Amino acid sequence: MQHPITGAQLIGYTESSLGAETFSTTNPRDGKHTPWSFRETTKEELQKAVEMAASAFIPFQELPGERRGEFLEAVAGELEAVSADLIEVYTLESGLPEARARGELGRTTGQLRAFADLARKDSWRMARIDAAQPDRQPVPKPDIRKCLYPLGPVAVFGASNFPFAFSTAGGDTASALAVGCPVVVKGHPLHAGTGEAVGRCVQKAARETGMPEGVFSHLQSSGISLGEQLVQHLLIKGVGFTGSRKAGLALSRLGQERAIPIPVFAEMGSINPVVVLPSATEESGGWAKAYAQSVTLGSGQFCTNPGLILGIAGPSWDRFVRSLAVEISQVPAGCMLHRGMADRFRTLREELLSQQGVTVLETNQEESGEAMVGGTVARVSGSDFCGNPSLQQEVFGPFTLTVGCSGREELLRAVQILEGQLTASILGDPEEIGREPELLSALKDKAGRLLFNGVPTGVEVCPSMHHGGPFPATTDARFTSVGTDAALRWVRPISFQNTPQQFLPPVLRDENPLGIWRMVNGEFSRKNSVV
Amino acid sequence: MQHPITGAQLIGYTESSLGAETFSTTNPRDGKHTPWSFRETTKEELQKAVEMAASAFIPFQELPGERRGEFLEAVAGELEAVSADLIEVYTLESGLPEARARGELGRTTGQLRAFADLARKDSWRMARIDAAQPDRQPVPKPDIRKCLYPLGPVAVFGASNFPFAFSTAGGDTASALAVGCPVVVKGHPLHAGTGEAVGRCVQKAARETGMPEGVFSHLQSSGISLGEQLVQHLLIKGVGFTGSRKAGLALSRLGQERAIPIPVFAEMGSINPVVVLPSATEESGGWAKAYAQSVTLGSGQFCTNPGLILGIAGPSWDRFVRSLAVEISQVPAGCMLHRGMADRFRTLREELLSQQGVTVLETNQEESGEAMVGGTVARVSGSDFCGNPSLQQEVFGPFTLTVGCSGREELLRAVQILEGQLTASILGDPEEIGREPELLSALKDKAGRLLFNGVPTGVEVCPSMHHGGPFPATTDARFTSVGTDAALRWVRPISFQNTPQQFLPPVLRDENPLGIWRMVNGEFSRKNSVV
Repeated sequence: MQHPITGAQLIGYTESSLGAETFSTTNPRDGKHTPWSFRETTKEELQKAVEMAASAFIPFQELPGERRGEFLEAVAGELEAVSADLIEVYTLESGLPEARARGELGRTTGQLRAFADLARKDSWRMARIDAAQPDRQPVPKPDIRKCLYPLGPVAVFGASNFPFAFSTAGGDTASALAVGCPVVVKGHPLHAGTGEAVGRCVQKAARETGMPEGVFSHLQSSGISLGEQLVQHLLIKGVGFTGSRKAGLALSRLGQERAIPIPVFAEMGSINPVVVLPSATEESGGWAKAYAQSVTLGSGQFCTNPGLILGIAGPSWDRFVRSLAVEISQVPAGCMLHRGMADRFRTLREELLSQQGVTVLETNQEESGEAMVGGTVARVSGSDFCGNPSLQQEVFGPFTLTVGCSGREELLRAVQILEGQLTASILGDPEEIGREPELLSALKDKAGRLLFNGVPTGVEVCPSMHHGGPFPATTDARFTSVGTDAALRWVRPISFQNTPQQFLPPVLRDENPLGIWRMVNGEFSRKNSVV
Repeated sequence: MQHPITGAQLIGYTESSLGAETFSTTNPRDGKHTPWSFRETTKEELQKAVEMAASAFIPFQELPGERRGEFLEAVAGELEAVSADLIEVYTLESGLPEARARGELGRTTGQLRAFADLARKDSWRMARIDAAQPDRQPVPKPDIRKCLYPLGPVAVFGASNFPFAFSTAGGDTASALAVGCPVVVKGHPLHAGTGEAVGRCVQKAARETGMPEGVFSHLQSSGISLGEQLVQHLLIKGVGFTGSRKAGLALSRLGQERAIPIPVFAEMGSINPVVVLPSATEESGGWAKAYAQSVTLGSGQFCTNPGLILGIAGPSWDRFVRSLAVEISQVPAGCMLHRGMADRFRTLREELLSQQGVTVLETNQEESGEAMVGGTVARVSGSDFCGNPSLQQEVFGPFTLTVGCSGREELLRAVQILEGQLTASILGDPEEIGREPELLSALKDKAGRLLFNGVPTGVEVCPSMHHGGPFPATTDARFTSVGTDAALRWVRPISFQNTPQQFLPPVLRDENPLGIWRMVNGEFSRKNSVV
């Protein structure tokens, strides 16, 4: 290991090991402890990390975006420099295969570079300028300009299912740092070693690019109290979380109940409904195979896992569902992130399979206490589905419920009663889809992303991505946690009225020194004047 | 009256008078009842209005923006057509002078036309397109496009202090209708007649421009239960409110506690601190006069009223404060919106004046029970101010507290301990301001709008306006209730993946039929292709 894992908290440029209590991580494949022991964060360490973040906030937000870009670029470089070590720790703690680790690391460095670019260009500031009109009647119009500013220190919770891409140096962290918000990470206890190893890369990059100390800290705990204290801390101004509904709602409530409430962006997963129209079930081979892969990818541990597939009952639907079951049975069992999570999967699956009218098509029997799980396909009628909201319960893991509706009307009804979702997909030829405007409209109302003839897993990182969706998929459907717009979670607008040029932020000065896109007197332009 | 005031609820294109209970409005100048009697809305009427709004939502949001623009334009035209009637009712119920009524009506029609323009151009949709890259390694990049969609039916609460501009057809209503959200207004009981008269204009415009019935309803009540039921109604998806902190926080809590939480945008006012640097107190005559007018404008009943003026104690500060007191004493007493509000003003003023170290410079003695109030200026030392948070209590009306600090350090400290504000202002010559970067930074952190050498009253309606601010000035510092960005409160993004052209909204189609600004592959353009 180039950076040894010591089990300490990383606070500013130092490490701290004040906690007497420790915890460890395990390899889910064999249930054995990893070689490390991690210290629980103490209250003093939490306080120090947050205070340093608050002190760093003023100089950090005032740095030119170019400098924050250098920092994020350096984090990406550092992760690549020690990638062999990182992948080793990652696979040990997560049970995920090396190819996944490698792919996710690439995604993580890609995200960091995308946010580095955003920071450099200051394009996230959404600059708007309305020039003065001294001669306007009945009263003169003042000069008003507006752009976005960072909120302050942000708390980021590591996600169990993305030890790289949505944890220590993941999308939440990168998007917050890009806009000038210091970050205090609460690492996920299932992959504390991965968190520390990544955290050391961020720490090194911050120091080497001359960031104010405190822009990043990394705290460990196996319990929930540290996270609660972070969300409640007066100096924390926003929270990013990806995980279970229960935890997300609890943190969101804490954020709202503060004397000064703060936004808690919780992405709480969903069952990602897929409507398969008859034209798609006819050519069932292709879609059944693609969906078998999507359901079982990463042992089904994705927020966008397709957990609900709806169609119209009949011979071709039956063939499709059977093909799906056969394809899923041919996928080897996968290792979940922790034996406890696999047990939880089996419990939830059991609960769902025991519901009225649900029958199982394909399931692998696994030993309780083992982390390996196989894919499961179940089926139920549309009328049973519509009558039982508990069939919408997410079974986190490689599971999907197929719903055979009696006709188009019941299919529409089944979609209309769904909870809010991250994604909704529709498979079918365009002509057939064109005959279902109500169904399309209903799917759109339920989801943050609507897919045509594809699988929902695999979330692009780009300006047009929306990885969010109506409650309870997230706590706030207006924001995304993937893609460059993720930065919009950590900012607020400030208007400047009749402000001398020297007191304006560079993006609002007449001469547009960065050459960015701005809305000037109602039109977008990159020009260097405001007339 | 061209449209007689009947005291009914306006529901879709009908009127409804099911309620047995009634209430009335009064002329605050003489305390006498106006000629009308208003029926309390029944539960059935509320239910009908909300259900009609929900039914109207689908066709309304699918109308071309051009059609919604016509509707808003027609509302403005209708208000102008009956302006004499409107101004008569407004002045009778509000006690505000005719010039103010006329000015506010102009602002209201101006807002409606600004939002009509926004609707027509579909420019609020923030279209983003990232074209497919089939050859990308290691996996192809799908085609992803994103734009904003309306949330659904919105509840708008009429504001007591803006019977035109922030009530029935005010900024909240116009911004929601512009983006396709039907609106159910709960009129303010102090100006129920004005509300009904304006509501009839909206109703007529909706019918005549062929809007789906239910896009607008107007409900009356003198109590709080109707508003609570609206915020809690399953079919309501967002709330706009301007008023007191107590009511705003209560509604916000109701919105959060729903099974499916919704955003409640409450603008709860603030004391709008003004820092007067020595160079500005030296030329005190000009600023004292301007601020005397700003403090007493509209009897001080503005969210942006400057209720706190801070400077550095000394002879020139004393001269400034005395000039301000003299100027305010020369402003005639003004009528508040209701005698009860005037009594509340007197009570809060008394409470503040009784605090440790506060002395009054100028106040008019008024009779309890009268609506007429005069301006009051009080003073306190910086140390007393910093030690007593209750001196930050807003005294809604023509009141301002001047704080003489012992020096620059105490001035900075006084700003740092302020609550969140809608605006913050600084007066001084640029060279002097340039020597106070910490003070500027502190003011910026506290406010949604920062003004240089001006008065905070008078809020421009333009794309760069931010009328919002950190809690408790508003429930969400990220959104504005004035200016075209007010529409962003009522929308959420939806992404479309690999979507055939015919299923995309027009703004996301390759050919850009509306010629709007879009971000295509990371760059803004109005071009009609995506390559």
